[in-house]
Amino acid sequence: MRNAVFDFSEMTTSVVAVKTDVLVNGQPVIGYAFNSTGRYACGEVMRTRMIPRLLKASPDSLLDPASGLIDPALALACMTQREKPGGHTERSIAVGTIECALWDALAKVKRIPLHTLLAERFNAGQQVQEVPCYVGGGWYAQDKGLSDLRDEIKSRLQEGYTHMKIKVGGVSLADDLKRIETSIAILGDPGHLAVDANAGLDHKRTWEYANALAPFGLRWFEEPTDPLDFELLFELSKHYAPAIATGENLFSTQDIQNLLRYSGLRAGQDILQVDIPQSYGITQFTKTLQVLRDQGWSSHQVFPHGGNLMTLAIVAGLDLGGCEAYPGVFGVFAGFNDDAQIENGMIRLSDRPGIGFEGQNELYELMHHIF
Amino acid sequence: MRNAVFDFSEMTTSVVAVKTDVLVNGQPVIGYAFNSTGRYACGEVMRTRMIPRLLKASPDSLLDPASGLIDPALALACMTQREKPGGHTERSIAVGTIECALWDALAKVKRIPLHTLLAERFNAGQQVQEVPCYVGGGWYAQDKGLSDLRDEIKSRLQEGYTHMKIKVGGVSLADDLKRIETSIAILGDPGHLAVDANAGLDHKRTWEYANALAPFGLRWFEEPTDPLDFELLFELSKHYAPAIATGENLFSTQDIQNLLRYSGLRAGQDILQVDIPQSYGITQFTKTLQVLRDQGWSSHQVFPHGGNLMTLAIVAGLDLGGCEAYPGVFGVFAGFNDDAQIENGMIRLSDRPGIGFEGQNELYELMHHIF
Repeated sequence: MRNAVFDFSEMTTSVVAVKTDVLVNGQPVIGYAFNSTGRYACGEVMRTRMIPRLLKASPDSLLDPASGLIDPALALACMTQREKPGGHTERSIAVGTIECALWDALAKVKRIPLHTLLAERFNAGQQVQEVPCYVGGGWYAQDKGLSDLRDEIKSRLQEGYTHMKIKVGGVSLADDLKRIETSIAILGDPGHLAVDANAGLDHKRTWEYANALAPFGLRWFEEPTDPLDFELLFELSKHYAPAIATGENLFSTQDIQNLLRYSGLRAGQDILQVDIPQSYGITQFTKTLQVLRDQGWSSHQVFPHGGNLMTLAIVAGLDLGGCEAYPGVFGVFAGFNDDAQIENGMIRLSDRPGIGFEGQNELYELMHHIF
Repeated sequence: MRNAVFDFSEMTTSVVAVKTDVLVNGQPVIGYAFNSTGRYACGEVMRTRMIPRLLKASPDSLLDPASGLIDPALALACMTQREKPGGHTERSIAVGTIECALWDALAKVKRIPLHTLLAERFNAGQQVQEVPCYVGGGWYAQDKGLSDLRDEIKSRLQEGYTHMKIKVGGVSLADDLKRIETSIAILGDPGHLAVDANAGLDHKRTWEYANALAPFGLRWFEEPTDPLDFELLFELSKHYAPAIATGENLFSTQDIQNLLRYSGLRAGQDILQVDIPQSYGITQFTKTLQVLRDQGWSSHQVFPHGGNLMTLAIVAGLDLGGCEAYPGVFGVFAGFNDDAQIENGMIRLSDRPGIGFEGQNELYELMHHIF
């Protein structure tokens, strides 16, 4: 399986389990998370710095005095002690994964879904029952032709999805245009199709693709080129009228602030795709969201990277634009609860406590063997 | 030991040894490097991704066809396979440390110092015998008063150094100004003193320090605030007339490119301090240097972070501005060859093959036990 830039043959991930001393039905509450997809395992950073710092801290220093329960913001501050400014990604994935597991534990102790807890904390308690969910697919694979792509999209539509994202940039523009036309023909609406170049285009090809894609009016054009090339985005956003999407390869609030300052991306239109567990977690993301709002962006412009239950809970709890799904890829480390229902492109939320990994059996089987 | 932001009580590092099949005097040539200072050990990234990729590659694919010897640029490309764009620091330190060890091995096989090899490759063979070397000191420590600071600087002057950098931002501005005045009084010239805030000042304090420091005409004012806050640097560089220094917490050519584009830093005046082993290594740094030159910067404006033999060889070989020294701090992971001579602020280069760790006995003792 590959995109325009690389294949996933060596991909790994880290799973975190946080065992608490709170009993529910006689069993200790355990919070879980994993470090999303696309970045490698980070167990050493967890084991040598982040977990020891948390374990060494006085327990009271990590608790919300009002509830006596763990405060993820205090845990975040504890984990980032003795870390130099900048160079975020060296630790942001390890920190964010642990932080998400703490949120899972906290919501489970309160016996409510994480999306409910987040809505109470950060979104005036506004509950949603379902969120938009699109498919990240259309991967390149050996011998995969247009008819295979057509079959892939048809089966997604049968599953209840309405919006699809496909890879571009891994073949010639002419071949990609055929893939795009094929996809639109099945989806029925170019606004239901997004394309993702995974930062694989050089400047020349970026403009060739932008010029060729613009007339289609696609949902978005994702990561044409290097994620830090704000200057090209600035030029592109002046000339490419439909939406541009980026952000899955920026891991700090500071980098997002710079993206907004320098890239010319358009409030009310363009799309931001931070991977929240990889970017120091939920607490830090609420600060990023504040930066976005200060610049006139809506939370609905955020479609986070990572098609998993963590992202789904965050999208629902923080009222973001929608969630990504990767049916059938990344093994057990993608997908939602096994009884998840997709209808008209919307996914219904489960009412399981916490993130709800307990409803995703194959992944939970792996997670609960940690203890 | 602490700066304005954090202490080093948990600091670790990774040492790399690359054993070659080339014999010199009957012994296999071994290249060494370590991951500089300030960022933590990164052995897992080396052991799970970078070393396996190199070992799995066909040997010929890593060799310079002309010489039959390892080509660090090919090794860099091999190590960065299957790595997503952006998020550099998650791997740049592991990659750069291994890359520097390969350069050490290569120079040793050629039986020449690394600075000579780099000068031949990248600097038209222009050899230097000595380079400017300043002391990074003036740390905060419990009960360290002005007289201790005075003694510290006096002993550095006696050792042959002429330029000094001290920490600021860890106490009140009034107290820091006393430390600065004390330091200038001994050094004799404000142009021989730099100050380093280690990104520890908020916006308000940045301006208080800038206004108070400007009249002194110090050598440079280093990292006032967050390394990614290009907007503040832009404002600061319009109002603060003397030199500003930054860059030790930017780890990719793309980040440096953005720094040059957006921060307003001044070609011919301001100072860039990339840590080269932490930023994908020497090959990648030559690309960063080209970006700098394209923007009118001189290589003499680069004073790399990291007071060690790797940096010294690179400064000499690529004709950079100068090298940092940390006498008596970071244990064996700082300093130069034991017979290094400092005179009038210049350090003489040794003619040992490679980086020359073999002349830094305590560190070499630790390194050569790897095999």
